[in-house]
Amino acid sequence: MTQLSDRARQYARANTARFVEELSAFLRIPSLSGDPAHAADVRRAAEWLAAHMRGLGFAGVAVMETAGHPVVYGEWLGAGPDRPTVLVYGHYDVVPAAMEDGWDTPPFEPVIKDGRIYARGATDDKGQLFIHVKALESFLTSEGAAPVNIKFLIEGEEEVSSPNLKPFIEAHFDLLKADVCVISDSSMPSIDAPAITHSLRGMTYIEVEVHGPKEDLHSGFFGGAVHNPALALVEILGGLYNPDHTIAVPGFYDDVVPLTAEERAMIARTELSEAQLKQSTGVPAVWGDASYTLRERVAARPTLDINGLWSGWSGPGPKTIIPAKAGAKLSSRLVANQNPHKIYELLKARIEALAPPTVRVEVRLLTTGEPALIPFDLPAMQAAARAYERGWGATPTFVRGGGSIPIVADIARLMQIPVVMMGYGLDDDGLHAPNESYSLEMFQRGIETAIVYLEELARLEHERSEPR
Amino acid sequence: MTQLSDRARQYARANTARFVEELSAFLRIPSLSGDPAHAADVRRAAEWLAAHMRGLGFAGVAVMETAGHPVVYGEWLGAGPDRPTVLVYGHYDVVPAAMEDGWDTPPFEPVIKDGRIYARGATDDKGQLFIHVKALESFLTSEGAAPVNIKFLIEGEEEVSSPNLKPFIEAHFDLLKADVCVISDSSMPSIDAPAITHSLRGMTYIEVEVHGPKEDLHSGFFGGAVHNPALALVEILGGLYNPDHTIAVPGFYDDVVPLTAEERAMIARTELSEAQLKQSTGVPAVWGDASYTLRERVAARPTLDINGLWSGWSGPGPKTIIPAKAGAKLSSRLVANQNPHKIYELLKARIEALAPPTVRVEVRLLTTGEPALIPFDLPAMQAAARAYERGWGATPTFVRGGGSIPIVADIARLMQIPVVMMGYGLDDDGLHAPNESYSLEMFQRGIETAIVYLEELARLEHERSEPR
Repeated sequence: MTQLSDRARQYARANTARFVEELSAFLRIPSLSGDPAHAADVRRAAEWLAAHMRGLGFAGVAVMETAGHPVVYGEWLGAGPDRPTVLVYGHYDVVPAAMEDGWDTPPFEPVIKDGRIYARGATDDKGQLFIHVKALESFLTSEGAAPVNIKFLIEGEEEVSSPNLKPFIEAHFDLLKADVCVISDSSMPSIDAPAITHSLRGMTYIEVEVHGPKEDLHSGFFGGAVHNPALALVEILGGLYNPDHTIAVPGFYDDVVPLTAEERAMIARTELSEAQLKQSTGVPAVWGDASYTLRERVAARPTLDINGLWSGWSGPGPKTIIPAKAGAKLSSRLVANQNPHKIYELLKARIEALAPPTVRVEVRLLTTGEPALIPFDLPAMQAAARAYERGWGATPTFVRGGGSIPIVADIARLMQIPVVMMGYGLDDDGLHAPNESYSLEMFQRGIETAIVYLEELARLEHERSEPR
Repeated sequence: MTQLSDRARQYARANTARFVEELSAFLRIPSLSGDPAHAADVRRAAEWLAAHMRGLGFAGVAVMETAGHPVVYGEWLGAGPDRPTVLVYGHYDVVPAAMEDGWDTPPFEPVIKDGRIYARGATDDKGQLFIHVKALESFLTSEGAAPVNIKFLIEGEEEVSSPNLKPFIEAHFDLLKADVCVISDSSMPSIDAPAITHSLRGMTYIEVEVHGPKEDLHSGFFGGAVHNPALALVEILGGLYNPDHTIAVPGFYDDVVPLTAEERAMIARTELSEAQLKQSTGVPAVWGDASYTLRERVAARPTLDINGLWSGWSGPGPKTIIPAKAGAKLSSRLVANQNPHKIYELLKARIEALAPPTVRVEVRLLTTGEPALIPFDLPAMQAAARAYERGWGATPTFVRGGGSIPIVADIARLMQIPVVMMGYGLDDDGLHAPNESYSLEMFQRGIETAIVYLEELARLEHERSEPR
């Protein structure tokens, strides 16, 4: 049976090589949102994307200011008011990357090798957001029109937990109005097992700093009589965990919605074996709360990780100091219904309770993100499942994601629309790690699935789905 | 009564301003022995010092090779074979220093302010070793001769625990032969309370690295199921200490020579109050093993300090990773009769016993140094006491130093001569810390005391003192 989307799909296949070249140009821009030194690069990435959208004939394209890095907006509303409108959310910012972290090639000089493109942002999220840009281009160029209206909301602060997106949505509510939101910023278990993510973890990210002497001291003159701040930090951090690997912060688990037997059964469908986890990470043994399976631990249970530690001398050779201070970055992945601000208060209270009188301890909140849980019986979710069957060629499963896209909960709540997470990545794409890469086959199949999804959405009753 | 040293002391007083200018030139050379990037600077400092000694008419001046940084040798033997020979030991290398550590002015651009010279190495040890160079210059220029023979042995690896000095001494035993060794690389309690150090702590300096995943992981995808290496490090380090602040390493204290009541009484003469320690360091409260006084803790008891910690992300903003590895530098100050290599084995065994099967742990030995204890009834020690009375204008006390000059024990043992530690520094000179400085008054009084000491040594029977 011929489908409206056939010519768009043919166009996409015929143009994949050019699409990859365009993506490469986008990946060359080091749009690190967390580092003030890269503010101009972040803006440059926004301008590049806006210019690219204009070139494709999208309307209303603009680099719109926020209190932080700008949002890129663009739309195509040619399907008319009787057709649904889909809002595509994505982000053009990336996390830091440097050769000394273990990259084989410079992180902002994309290299194509063995069917993959290597660069920071390749999968998270420049490559995945680009799929939707190319899906619309394919319809517009091959058919002159798309089956639904599309709006793009591409932000530049996702990697710093989107501090300005909520106010932006509130300030531009009418502009952004849509029937469904689609986000591709997550992953599937394997290339032949597509997945629709219906849950994401939230986050509370803090920084702890322990201050001892007013400056570094000679360890020979003061060692033994002054509490070493690095040791005090070690003692405090050690006090945040129980011997069974659960988190020793009073109240931490209080608001966690317990997993039902049915949910545990669904999670078991994508169970992760010890062998798989050891193979993909290289760890000698797995770890964690033995009351839960590995998949539950990484997707449906809250965590507390040390993301960074620093104190004193870490250069070559010895330096015999008692450091003046020691610090750590700590982040907690949260699940429904934990509140990130409440968790911050609990963490802070616990750390302050553990702090000895021999040092001064500071706890700072860096970012927060709400956890999200989306019901999978909504029509827009079911349309996505059909899009995978036709566009990807496999039936998707509904999964919980362990990562955090704080804005998912915000969009669902603020805009009162379902948020459909069609992740076109793989867990071992190396996102937030050295040698991040993206499969060109995933990119191409993603574009075809995104094309089909627009068609499936057009077939839905034009009704406002009720969010939960 | 006119003394032989009067004219030399007058010369020194008249020339202090020039001496300080010369010291400034020496301090400008960033002779960081622990950093391979500064190898050429270390050599430049050696060449500078050798050229300076030649300019003063010292004989046999040479920059002598070792397996590491070179030794500067120079001598004046004009007093003849019937007079004693004193070997001056010092070091021209320094520990790292950078503006971002909290320096008010660049560490290698000496600044004179309020009677102090600020620069890395000002007190440790360029300023203090220069005292002996200027003492000999003062005799030679004012009298044409010194009352004893002098040899200078100035090394460039003290800050990395002198790995090549012992073989150097063994290879040049006849050249270095002397009756007494004098070292100025320690401090006195206050400017009006000079001290002769008769004990130094030794050292075992190690590096511990914990390896988990093969590369940094996204904390959202793996958090909860992989042992965070930074947490594993925290747990291991925490296991090295007991709740009473003693060191939880089996066998660690076994070889410590217990303090006698007499020794404790002598140490009590320079007792350190909590208020003093809080004032000089800025810590909110003191810490340590409550069975010992503060002075005992910093001078006569062994320690274990964390000198550095590193893992994951420590730059601005959040980065949601599980770091691939985490590391720490740890050093233990040792007292007689602890053996640094045995302590290394004990530390390593304890760390390996604490290491969980979820990570891989590496322990590396960086440097060692023997502790030293010198009897204070030796003639050369008593001559030093008289030199302070006349040259400094105060009666010295015999004290234990908390720092480490590993070579002290080596020189005493290899050369079978007493080692007299006439420290002309102050604990709050900021050595090994930002804004290291040296009092110009201490510098000048030090030169006069060093001049008088040469005279006092000439009055001793020319006998070979027996070392203990």
